[in-house]
Amino acid sequence: VPLSKTELKNLKSLLTKKGRKKSGMFLAEGVRLLEESVRWRFLPRTVYYAPFMLSTRAEKLIRQLRGRAVETVQLSARDLRSMSDTESPQGIVGLFARPDTKLAKLYQPKHRKLVLCEDISDPGNLGTLARSSLAFGFDLMLLCGSSAEPYSPKVVRASAGAVFGLQIAVVTLKEVYAFVAQEEVTVIAADLKTEYDAKLPKRTLPKRRIVLAVGSEATGLSKGILQRADIRVRIQHLRAVESLNAAVAGSIIMKEIYDLSH
Amino acid sequence: VPLSKTELKNLKSLLTKKGRKKSGMFLAEGVRLLEESVRWRFLPRTVYYAPFMLSTRAEKLIRQLRGRAVETVQLSARDLRSMSDTESPQGIVGLFARPDTKLAKLYQPKHRKLVLCEDISDPGNLGTLARSSLAFGFDLMLLCGSSAEPYSPKVVRASAGAVFGLQIAVVTLKEVYAFVAQEEVTVIAADLKTEYDAKLPKRTLPKRRIVLAVGSEATGLSKGILQRADIRVRIQHLRAVESLNAAVAGSIIMKEIYDLSH
Repeated sequence: VPLSKTELKNLKSLLTKKGRKKSGMFLAEGVRLLEESVRWRFLPRTVYYAPFMLSTRAEKLIRQLRGRAVETVQLSARDLRSMSDTESPQGIVGLFARPDTKLAKLYQPKHRKLVLCEDISDPGNLGTLARSSLAFGFDLMLLCGSSAEPYSPKVVRASAGAVFGLQIAVVTLKEVYAFVAQEEVTVIAADLKTEYDAKLPKRTLPKRRIVLAVGSEATGLSKGILQRADIRVRIQHLRAVESLNAAVAGSIIMKEIYDLSH
Repeated sequence: VPLSKTELKNLKSLLTKKGRKKSGMFLAEGVRLLEESVRWRFLPRTVYYAPFMLSTRAEKLIRQLRGRAVETVQLSARDLRSMSDTESPQGIVGLFARPDTKLAKLYQPKHRKLVLCEDISDPGNLGTLARSSLAFGFDLMLLCGSSAEPYSPKVVRASAGAVFGLQIAVVTLKEVYAFVAQEEVTVIAADLKTEYDAKLPKRTLPKRRIVLAVGSEATGLSKGILQRADIRVRIQHLRAVESLNAAVAGSIIMKEIYDLSH
C-alpha cells in the first residue's frame, strides 16, 4: 500500500521543529544510525525504504528490523528523498517516538556523571557532546537555555547515534538550581573566562556525583551556573585563539574526568 | 559606484569550489571572522558591507579596515545577502586572496609540531581541527586525501578564523611519504583501530619534530601512513561508542602533546 499524501506530508513535517513538537516523533536516516538504534534497542516504530537505493548492508538491516517486529514500508525513491535531510540519502529512514525528556523521569540516584549543556545551540556541537558523553561514561545529559533540540536530524546525525544510548533531559535553569541544591553533586564549570589555568583536583573527584557544565563559545556559562560551581576549570592553551570549540572543550574535560576514574 | 552584475556574479561564484579555484580568492563573512583576519594581519583585499545591516562593532571594524588601506565597497542589503553563506548575515563580507598551499613554500625547519589530516572531509571537523591546532601550538597543517578545502566558507567559519593564523598545506600522499622520509620527524598516528590503549611516551616526545596524523571516522588512516607511524595512539574510552568525532579525537591528542611540552 503506498503512502497517502497526508502521511507523506506528516513525515516530511518531522524535518521541522514544529512538526516534531506536534507529533512527538523524529526521524533518523541512513544505515549507520539505524544500526546504532538496533544496538541500543531503541527501535523505530516504522522504517521507510526505497528498494533500489539500498546497499547489501541496508538490506540486511531491514531483515534484522523485521525480525524484531518493526514495521517496514516500501516507498518510491522520490518519496524517500523528499523526507531526507542529507545530500546523499541511503534509501532508509526510521520513524521514532521521542523519549521523555523530563529530568524527574530520567534522573536516578545511581547516576554518577552528568553533563549540563547551556546554550549549545549548534546541532553539530550538541551531537558531538552527546557522543563524547557516552564514550566517557556520562550517564545523563541536561540541556538548558538556547541549546539545540536533541532529536533534530542534525543533532542525531552529529551524535553518530549516541542519542539512542544516552539519556537526555531538557531543563530550565530553575530546575538546574533546584537539582544542584537537592542532590549531593560537585558542579564543575568549564569556564572559558577563568583567569587562572584551573585544573581538576586529582584525588577527590571520582567519589562524588559530578555535574560538568559546558557553556557556549560566545558567552560562556551564565552567572547562575557559575555561582553554583564548586570547581571552575579552564583548558590550558595558547592565547593564539580566544577559545576552543565548545564540543572540543567539553570533550577534553570529560576525558580528563574519565581518566581520573579509570 | 554600485557593483556591476558581472562583479556580483563573480563574488557569488566564490561560494562554490569551482569559483574559488578559478579565481584564487575566497570569502569570509561576519564581524568576528573579519576581526580575526585583522588580528592575524591577513587582510582582505576588499570588504563589502550593507550600511543598514551593521552593528556598532561592525562599523568600528570597517573604520579600522579603512585605516589599514583596505578597500571598502557599499552594497545593498539584497546584494550582500546574495553573497552570504549564512542564515543571518551581519552585513559585512571580506574578499581574500587564497594563500599558497604548497608544502615546499610553507614548511620551515623551525616547525616543531605538524598535524596531518587525511580524509577529513567534513568542513566543520576540519575547521575545528585548525582552531585546536593554533590553540595547542601546531605550526603547520597538512591536508591530504579527501579532506575538505581549507578556504571554503564552512571551514573558515568552523575554524573561528584560525585559518587566518595557521599555515595550511595541501599535499598528496606521495609528498607526505617523501617529507616523512627526508625530515627528522616522529609520526604519531591517531589510530582508532589500534587494539591496545596506546599512550604517548611522556619524556622523549617534546625533543623531536612531530607529525600528528588524524584520519577519518569511517575508515581511519590509510595503510601507507600507518606503516610510517612511529607511535600509534588510541584514546581510551568506553566501548559504548565505536569512535569519537574526528575533530574531538584529534584535539584530545593535540592537547596531550601540548601538555607534555608545557
